[in-house]
Order: sequence, then structure tokens, then C-alpha cells
Amino acid sequence: MSERTHIDLLAESNEFRRPRLIRFSDCDPAGIVFYPQYFVMLNGLVEDWVNEGLGLSYHGLVAQRRIGLPTVKLEADFRAVSRMGDQVMLGLTVERLGSRSMALLVRCFDAAAGELRMQVKQVLVTTSLETHRAVEIPPDMRAAIVRNAPTLG
Amino acid sequence: MSERTHIDLLAESNEFRRPRLIRFSDCDPAGIVFYPQYFVMLNGLVEDWVNEGLGLSYHGLVAQRRIGLPTVKLEADFRAVSRMGDQVMLGLTVERLGSRSMALLVRCFDAAAGELRMQVKQVLVTTSLETHRAVEIPPDMRAAIVRNAPTLG
Amino acid sequence: MSERTHIDLLAESNEFRRPRLIRFSDCDPAGIVFYPQYFVMLNGLVEDWVNEGLGLSYHGLVAQRRIGLPTVKLEADFRAVSRMGDQVMLGLTVERLGSRSMALLVRCFDAAAGELRMQVKQVLVTTSLETHRAVEIPPDMRAAIVRNAPTLG
Amino acid sequence: MSERTHIDLLAESNEFRRPRLIRFSDCDPAGIVFYPQYFVMLNGLVEDWVNEGLGLSYHGLVAQRRIGLPTVKLEADFRAVSRMGDQVMLGLTVERLGSRSMALLVRCFDAAAGELRMQVKQVLVTTSLETHRAVEIPPDMRAAIVRNAPTLG
Repeated sequence: MSERTHIDLLAESNEFRRPRLIRFSDCDPAGIVFYPQYFVMLNGLVEDWVNEGLGLSYHGLVAQRRIGLPTVKLEADFRAVSRMGDQVMLGLTVERLGSRSMALLVRCFDAAAGELRMQVKQVLVTTSLETHRAVEIPPDMRAAIVRNAPTLG
Repeated sequence: MSERTHIDLLAESNEFRRPRLIRFSDCDPAGIVFYPQYFVMLNGLVEDWVNEGLGLSYHGLVAQRRIGLPTVKLEADFRAVSRMGDQVMLGLTVERLGSRSMALLVRCFDAAAGELRMQVKQVLVTTSLETHRAVEIPPDMRAAIVRNAPTLG
Repeated sequence: MSERTHIDLLAESNEFRRPRLIRFSDCDPAGIVFYPQYFVMLNGLVEDWVNEGLGLSYHGLVAQRRIGLPTVKLEADFRAVSRMGDQVMLGLTVERLGSRSMALLVRCFDAAAGELRMQVKQVLVTTSLETHRAVEIPPDMRAAIVRNAPTLG
Repeated sequence: MSERTHIDLLAESNEFRRPRLIRFSDCDPAGIVFYPQYFVMLNGLVEDWVNEGLGLSYHGLVAQRRIGLPTVKLEADFRAVSRMGDQVMLGLTVERLGSRSMALLVRCFDAAAGELRMQVKQVLVTTSLETHRAVEIPPDMRAAIVRNAPTLG
């Protein structure tokens, strides 16, 4: 694959991080993560970030408030393979906050050595789940994002 | 989402195309395709292209010849939602052929109206499944790609 | 695994059948179908049966009429492994038709030799997707099932 | 669905338990767990049980020792729906230990109220991943199972 990159695990960071075990069900006949499965994992990270990082309810957002967070654009780089049994760290940083969209950097790295496995730059839009059209980011969500990352405000 | 794009369904094309029904299992609680599922679908299209477009065996490549086709880079745009029951068309074009990699344009559009749903520019590398390192594209695969798209030769 | 069973491919049958290629994405690090993936495949067969065998619209049933077809009980036997690249046949037979439920026999066998790979006896209930409670099988669905399998009427 | 069942959460138990959040990606257009996804979750529970309950390495078993744990038979009952955002508990008990197989009871229940959502009786066989034939349960695995559940010895 391409050049190796390492994450400085001790650096000060606003990154929202959660550990993850690479499971049998994530892997393909080559014994490594089937790449669409990374997007499932990282969607789970977005859920955890909304619930635990922002202190909102992802499921309430979708099921009660009928607001979706679809991805409209993404760029992914896969740098090194992840194997069944690997302990990885998933990380999320908000890079840009618009009125109806946000740009995230989400990534997966080796939890011990910090080797970057893959990263995604991803634009999410807040939409109405009735019309599938973009709507303003809800004020409580915006406030929570800015509270965590004041430079975005 | 972003601007609508339509595919000219009658245009002369080297695109490898296969129809696909959007299934219940492709969709999320918003009733639309869960985006990682597009990558599963498009991985299936790459399989069909190798088997039927190139006349090789994808499964022989992986299981017997131990050659993988991992994605090392992708850029995806999601333009319009696909709903359960939609009849879509998946298309694949080789845009660049390197010695150990190739760039593909793969996309999903409405089978009747040609409306673009999403597209991905994707770089695949041929690797040894023993070492997960890049290897030369096998000569029979290169020959078959060039036969279909002479301008790449 | 357990004893081998073969399907008589020429026998007269009311079984609804559809061919399926075992794909890379269906398989696990052991190179064989990851068993939950069989249930995804067989859920797709139920979709095709409703659409093509019964001449109704599965997606209309779920999305417009808000009727679900959840499984409440299943018994599965896995007799022989399926490998990436295998051409299999999926088959569905209605074994019992109740007022709000039906019992299906769904199975997967080798498309050429007829060797049984796995089979499932599955009870489906028609439910309201508003309440998730059982409702009567819709009359058009019941009529179509009986038309195909008069002994159930 | 069928009759409701509750788990006595305070009862003495040999059950191996792990909590799990029902995620967006587990759910279908009806907003409830897509049933094949339960089997993915429960396969993850088997992984955790081997790693943490038995103190072995599931991934070492598969990748280095080339021993698989395929399911040859299962019976599942689905009693109540699980919704996106639910906190559930997954539990595993060994019910029978043979020479080359074991019978497990695995189940999912509401983590707070103990309401049973679904349960599976499942027979796993230890196999050689070279031949896909049954082999003896490895002595370290058998010893760890008996240590946890002496009545099985």
C-alpha cells in the first residue's frame, strides 16, 4: 500500500476516540477487514460521538426528531491492513462546521503503536427524514460541537 | 443533497453495466440505502466485471492464485437517495491502468431515468494475499482490460 | 458436518427457485459463507418470491402498506460448506398457511449437483409496522399463495 | 409475536454476559433489528466468550491454529423486537459438551428489565479449516469450558 503514517498517541487532541476489536465478522476471505466494513465501524463511531461526545441521543435524533446524518461526500485512504483480532482505535475530529453540513476526519489506527490503518474525510449533512432535504444543524447539536471545539464557533 | 446529474443511457459507452434491485437488507431505518452497503454492491460489480467483463475468475484469482484487489483510495459522491425496491444500474469504467494499480469509476444510477445516485473513483492495487504487498497486474488481466478498452494499452 | 443430502433437480416441484453466486462479501476468513449471510440471502429470496412468485410488491407491502414479515421462529441445519464462487440455487416452499403466519422451508443447494448446503424451517408473521403486532395475512397475498399451492387453501 | 419471557437478572448464573447497544447499522427499514444481524452480534459474543470467558484467543484459534467453530444446527425464537438505541444484554451458556461439538444457549434480553428479545440453541462443531471436517475440541478449550461449568466435565 502507500506510505506508513503514525499517530502521536500522547499529543493533546480534541479527537473523540473509542477502541474497537477487529472481529471475525469484519473480515473477508483474505483475513483482513473488508473495506465496506470500515464504514460500518466508523458509522458506529459517529453514533458514539453524538451520544457520548455531544451528550445528545443519536437514536432520538433519527427516530423521534426525524433528522438524518447522511454522508454526501467522502475521501478514504487505506494505508495498512487490519487483521482479525487487532485492537484498533477509532478517532473523529470535526474539521469544519457549516450551517447544514459538517466535515469530519475519521480514522482507524493501531491502538498500541499508533500506525494509521485508514482515514476518511467525510461531509455529513443534516436532513429531514421526511423529505431527505438538508435542514439546519439543530441548535443543541451545534452548541455541543462548539463547546467541544471552540475554534469552530 | 448536491446537484442532480443524469446519465445519457443511449450514449456509446465502454462502461460495464449490471442491473441491481435495492433490497430490504440494503436499507437503514431511514428507508434508504445505508451508504456502506453501496460499497458492498460495487464490490460485487467488480466481481462480475472480472468474471464476465474480463472473462477471468475473480474467485480463482483470490482463492487459487492468491491475488487480492484491495482498494487503497476512494472518493465517493452521494447525489440522490436510493430507496428499497428501486431498480438501479451499476456501472464500471477503467480510467487508468498502471503496472500494479488501476483507477476505476464506479457508479449507481436509476435504471429508467438515468439519474445519478452516487459515484466512486477508486484505486485498486493487485496484491499478494500472502504478503499483502503490491504485485504486477497479472498479464491475462492486463490483456483483457486492454482488449475491452484499447485506449488504455 | 452431518450427513449429505441431495435434491432431485428434475422432480416436479412447487418450490420457488432463484440462482445465486456466492460472493466474496458473503464469505469469512475461513473462505466459506459466514452463516448469518445465508439469512441475508434467504431474506432476499423471500423478497423475490413476494415480487415474482406472488406477483405482489414486497417493497410496497413494507413501505406503503406498512406490513412487515418478521421471522418469529426458525430452525436451520447446515450440511455442507459453500465457498466463494459457488453457483447455488435458493428454494422456497410454503409448508403451512395460517391466518396471521406461514411456515416456509427455504434452502440452499449446489446448482449443478443438487447437494444440500443448508435449509431453514421458518415461521413468518404478518405484522403492522406501526404496532409490531400480528395482523391477518392480506387477502391478495393469501390468494396468491393458494393459487401457487392449491393444497394449502 | 409470542408470549413474553423475563430473565431473573439477579439469579446466580454461569451465563457469560456482555452488554451491547443496538446500532443504526443493525436495524432495517422497519426500525428494528434485522434478524440476520442478531446472528452477527451473537457470533461476536462467542468471540468474546472464547477470549475473555475461556481466556483463549479466538483469532489465534482461527488464524494460527486453523480451527473453525462453524454452526451446524440452530433453533431461534424471536420474542420481542429490539429497536435502535436499545441497551441489550447478550448471554451465552454451554448446555452440552461433546467430543467434537458443543451446544450453546445464546440469547439477547433487555439490559434493564430483563425482557427476552430472542434466544438461540446452537450446535457448534470444532473443525479443521484445511478440510472443513470435525476435529476433537482442543484440550485447552475443553479444560477452560469445564473449569467454568464443572457439571459439564
